[in-house]
Amino acid sequence: MLKTEKPQKGSAHDQRVVEGGAESRWDPLTGNWTIFAPNRTDRPDEYESQVDTQTRTIECPFCPGNEDATPDPVWVGRVSDEDSSIDILNPSSALPDKEDWSVRVVPNRFPAVDPVNGSVTRAESPELFRRAPIRGGHEVIIESRGHHQSLTQLDLAELNLAFTAYRDRLKYWRSMPGVAYLSTFKNVGGKAGASLSHTHSQLIATDRIPTAVRASVERMVRHRASTGCCLQCDLIRAEIKSATRMVWRDDTLVAYCPFASQMPMAVRISTIEHQARFEDLNDAKLEAVSRRVQRIVSWLEKIRPGTAYNFCLHTCPPGLSDATDAYHWAIDIFPRMTQLAGFEWSSHCLINPLLPEMAAAKYRVCARAEDPRVRP
Amino acid sequence: MLKTEKPQKGSAHDQRVVEGGAESRWDPLTGNWTIFAPNRTDRPDEYESQVDTQTRTIECPFCPGNEDATPDPVWVGRVSDEDSSIDILNPSSALPDKEDWSVRVVPNRFPAVDPVNGSVTRAESPELFRRAPIRGGHEVIIESRGHHQSLTQLDLAELNLAFTAYRDRLKYWRSMPGVAYLSTFKNVGGKAGASLSHTHSQLIATDRIPTAVRASVERMVRHRASTGCCLQCDLIRAEIKSATRMVWRDDTLVAYCPFASQMPMAVRISTIEHQARFEDLNDAKLEAVSRRVQRIVSWLEKIRPGTAYNFCLHTCPPGLSDATDAYHWAIDIFPRMTQLAGFEWSSHCLINPLLPEMAAAKYRVCARAEDPRVRP
Repeated sequence: MLKTEKPQKGSAHDQRVVEGGAESRWDPLTGNWTIFAPNRTDRPDEYESQVDTQTRTIECPFCPGNEDATPDPVWVGRVSDEDSSIDILNPSSALPDKEDWSVRVVPNRFPAVDPVNGSVTRAESPELFRRAPIRGGHEVIIESRGHHQSLTQLDLAELNLAFTAYRDRLKYWRSMPGVAYLSTFKNVGGKAGASLSHTHSQLIATDRIPTAVRASVERMVRHRASTGCCLQCDLIRAEIKSATRMVWRDDTLVAYCPFASQMPMAVRISTIEHQARFEDLNDAKLEAVSRRVQRIVSWLEKIRPGTAYNFCLHTCPPGLSDATDAYHWAIDIFPRMTQLAGFEWSSHCLINPLLPEMAAAKYRVCARAEDPRVRP
Repeated sequence: MLKTEKPQKGSAHDQRVVEGGAESRWDPLTGNWTIFAPNRTDRPDEYESQVDTQTRTIECPFCPGNEDATPDPVWVGRVSDEDSSIDILNPSSALPDKEDWSVRVVPNRFPAVDPVNGSVTRAESPELFRRAPIRGGHEVIIESRGHHQSLTQLDLAELNLAFTAYRDRLKYWRSMPGVAYLSTFKNVGGKAGASLSHTHSQLIATDRIPTAVRASVERMVRHRASTGCCLQCDLIRAEIKSATRMVWRDDTLVAYCPFASQMPMAVRISTIEHQARFEDLNDAKLEAVSRRVQRIVSWLEKIRPGTAYNFCLHTCPPGLSDATDAYHWAIDIFPRMTQLAGFEWSSHCLINPLLPEMAAAKYRVCARAEDPRVRP
């Protein structure tokens, strides 16, 4: 049997950034190495295109007045015009006016998974050709009545309402028997996998934990068992101490560019205090997270105008609920600047042309331009 | 400690394709599940663009006359104008004429790895921030004097010469002490990660085996240990028997759409007979492989004109040379039709809108149009 490669341990501090040369960095959350090759940004590029543009316009199914183009909502929220207070409606009762909404959540018309209560039975299949139905839910969170493309164009009240929708729908799906994994994400621009431009995010709940997610949680559980600490709590403490990859922090939240980022300009946001589930955020923290996500995306758009980007919300998988002392929720935000090419598809080892120390420095310039008192 | 999810076993045959509904399929080579959601192709798309076009033109460093724009070649091959015979020149001796070449291999000017003989010493780093130099080689195989964009535009003699270059350079890097992993690949079009359009492929040799590659080879080794058979030999036999995903075969080679393909229209080509290393192909088989790759890409381009695509050549990693009875070389060819979005980045579980049975049927139509006697 083959032995698993053990990365070498040592005492030198991580502050020494290799300038120009290629280096590889190990991600303790995934066990993957990322190759950093800063000189590759100097390559001539015949296909270069920074801005992601729409190629055609369709009648937008997410705009007010087109509510019948989507299935009936499962969640509706309204922001009061007078005092910006939030009002959550129960769509199981008849709505006074189907066009009266600020944020609405609807089942995806083109779901990636079958309904969790569907009649499909788990198929059996031979050893080499294993197959099974994939069940759960696939919902779209329509974040605004306005035909905006990025969450930076939303009122903070709208964005806070969208984050409230994430929290409510995550709680709903977590309570659903059989749901093992929850993925909440946002695709902005065609390069980020969006098919519609009207600002929206998605939630997919599945009855199976993806292999890589399980492996990553197993790493966190092993770290907790061997050290008594949450791996991400340890990482956050180390990042705050190191300061070189910090983007922003206050007493509650932290945003940093991860040491082994697979993608250039990637930022991770989380609570400094240990918390396994995003859904357990209270109203004040939820509002602070939505505000911080908006600021960071605005900095990204200042650095790379018109960029396509994703955001991925990681919360403790319901199928691994005994991992709550080891798991730590996080939101990852990253623009789509590079394409996965043959090497990455072959090796699953990504080549990142930008060191996270350089990325964090760019973000900090934007943060300080807004508030010179910003730490670190 | 968490238990690893065991896919269910059963007796039902795999021929029953779920029509319309979502299903997940397990890849025994990687342990990953792929979600198949055929209905998602019906989604409206405001960013749709099938054809990958150049956005700007630069002075091509790969065209004849511009040899000084690249480092000196490490391998030069010529096809005779008279009888198409192949002539390999030794670039360590002085070349009669630097412009006299058909295929040339040069070090990449923007390498992803540092030279294997460089002076960098392996850095030490603390537990959470492990880093190390990444060393090896990064070469570009310039496949033609003509400013072509796809390998379907090459003479078969040129393409055969390019495949000879792969074989020779893989042998060279395998013999280099410290080299653990070899990746040979081709990126065609900006969506596939290409930065230059002139037809070329690349070889990256590294002193570290990527985590996912090691895990996959470990699966193959376990299968060999428990069954006495090579996993890919078993898969090829099962695919030939099933026939539903077969694209083409003769007595030596096989091409099929893998059961759990992560990407739509993906095809895998290999020898039916067990062979761990691509570099061990003899001249006749090498010529047959290059011819078959060209035919399959031509079918793909018939189905999706102007498509971006990758090809990835997998050969037994030199760092795992005791796995030769378990490893089986293969070439994967796949167009870039979909973008990885937030769900895929979060879960590493890909959503493929096209079942491989449907993809194989499309390829077979093209194969039969060329030769009605084609099997299966």
